[in-house]
Amino acid sequence: MRLATRHDGTPDGQLVVVSDDGLACRAVDGWPSLLEAMTRWHEAESALQDAAEALSTGSGEPLDPASLCAPLPRSWQWLDGSAFNTHGELVQIAFGLDPVDASRPLMYQGMSDRFLGPHADVPVPDETLGIDFEGEFGVIVDAVPMGVSVEEAARHIRLIVQINDWSLRAIAPIEMKTGFGWVQAKPACSMAPFAVTPDELGPAWRDGRVCMDLVVEWNERRFGRVNGDEMAFSLPELVAHAARTRDLVAGTIIGTGTVSNAEYATRGSACISEQRAIEIIAHGAPQTPFMAFGDRVTMFGILPDERRPFGTISQKVVRA
Amino acid sequence: MRLATRHDGTPDGQLVVVSDDGLACRAVDGWPSLLEAMTRWHEAESALQDAAEALSTGSGEPLDPASLCAPLPRSWQWLDGSAFNTHGELVQIAFGLDPVDASRPLMYQGMSDRFLGPHADVPVPDETLGIDFEGEFGVIVDAVPMGVSVEEAARHIRLIVQINDWSLRAIAPIEMKTGFGWVQAKPACSMAPFAVTPDELGPAWRDGRVCMDLVVEWNERRFGRVNGDEMAFSLPELVAHAARTRDLVAGTIIGTGTVSNAEYATRGSACISEQRAIEIIAHGAPQTPFMAFGDRVTMFGILPDERRPFGTISQKVVRA
Repeated sequence: MRLATRHDGTPDGQLVVVSDDGLACRAVDGWPSLLEAMTRWHEAESALQDAAEALSTGSGEPLDPASLCAPLPRSWQWLDGSAFNTHGELVQIAFGLDPVDASRPLMYQGMSDRFLGPHADVPVPDETLGIDFEGEFGVIVDAVPMGVSVEEAARHIRLIVQINDWSLRAIAPIEMKTGFGWVQAKPACSMAPFAVTPDELGPAWRDGRVCMDLVVEWNERRFGRVNGDEMAFSLPELVAHAARTRDLVAGTIIGTGTVSNAEYATRGSACISEQRAIEIIAHGAPQTPFMAFGDRVTMFGILPDERRPFGTISQKVVRA
Repeated sequence: MRLATRHDGTPDGQLVVVSDDGLACRAVDGWPSLLEAMTRWHEAESALQDAAEALSTGSGEPLDPASLCAPLPRSWQWLDGSAFNTHGELVQIAFGLDPVDASRPLMYQGMSDRFLGPHADVPVPDETLGIDFEGEFGVIVDAVPMGVSVEEAARHIRLIVQINDWSLRAIAPIEMKTGFGWVQAKPACSMAPFAVTPDELGPAWRDGRVCMDLVVEWNERRFGRVNGDEMAFSLPELVAHAARTRDLVAGTIIGTGTVSNAEYATRGSACISEQRAIEIIAHGAPQTPFMAFGDRVTMFGILPDERRPFGTISQKVVRA
């Protein structure tokens, strides 16, 4: 199933089921929003499946891509990992950071009261803040009890999403140095239009990883085509890590962190910061600037058969 | 005005206005929950004032303290500062940390999907995790636009609350070292029963600080009686800091961080970790253990006239 959310004037928007070709959609009786559906997923799932079936027989309405916001326009919790070793190592070498403890996943709690839609402008107050994108995947879980095992955690993963974790690199190291994590350096993230059930990805959803390419374009030029398969920790491991000392509220989103591959020389990167780290290591200084107002970033996950299950993020950075 | 929230089977609970003596309360037509009221505070405020007036003429129902949950049982955002220099300096000296940049407030984004009620048991999975309390104050704001000035930020502070920021000290330094901030080390916080408008504190609300004592008792023994007046940054400054690169959603809670005073020798502390830091500096090793299952912590803010505007937090730590 592919799910999306339409602007309807409410903060949670209107949940719709989307057809395979992405051209039609259908609202779901009794399930106004995806956040609501996550709270009682077992009940919601069958209603959503009924709607998807009706849709497959032609009983839907045209889907206007401009009407879509993030599939989950807000949620109670957003916990983002950083599970790609290549990214961590490049940044560590380039910026002379201490090595991290590789036995534990990295994770921070981010802003979850607002996820920008796939085509929304991205407001930033100052062009000199080191405006950067981070292309990644994420999962949405139903309610997860504290202390869940990795095996059990896997069963709570209900939906997969594609995220752009906007980052302000001029502030990030200052906040990191405090040990308190990021507040100013991490404004609202964006989501691609469709949240999908894991079966939609076929064999690309394996080992608890989203093993598909993520294409990143900056101002219409290819920046990276990275694959989600090289996570040091799987998504179920990240969920279990998050739930060690807290129950995870239904609708919690857990992110992979910026996708990165050992073959970065041919694949490129999913964030500017990593590209700059590569340049620092090679040349002693970064060559690629960060984003400017008016710049556009486009991102889409793509399967071997060319399908783009999450749709496409395409956004422009603007002065707030 | 004093506001509270009663358990009613919904996650947001039922908003009530509370009488001056804390014995009676009254629900508010059209304003089911405090979170809802925060989203349209200007409208809600007059309805709440009408209810408070009706209550003052005896038109209320008895308030059952056992029926109360946190005044804001969940919110979209919780950002906690660490604005007391004494606390920061003691911890820094005792644990040999690098000095922090004193020109910027410290702040982390914490779990906001659940705030425990004032009498709820506190579930922790493991007694060896260094279970600790942190007594502090906080403010609840309505919607704050990005880039707000400190002066404007002050006008968005609608309510003041008293918080216990539960912390697991065996995990905290491990997570701090990553620079990503805390996830496992910071499970759900607790709130005292009453959220109050600033005028309820009289002269104790001044310079954007909650200048009143906070009494902390651990297993019925006095642990600290600290005052909120020594913040290096005011609460409006913390709000403006949080809003530098994001709009703050209505209902955002901003915390002071654990209250701490230069006269800690006579005043004591509002968390065990600080007491242990004092012992390490004095004796080379900590003497006070962390909490055990079954231990109770009690906290209340108290004014010079002995009033306790937020009511009292009294909670037991239990095995999850």
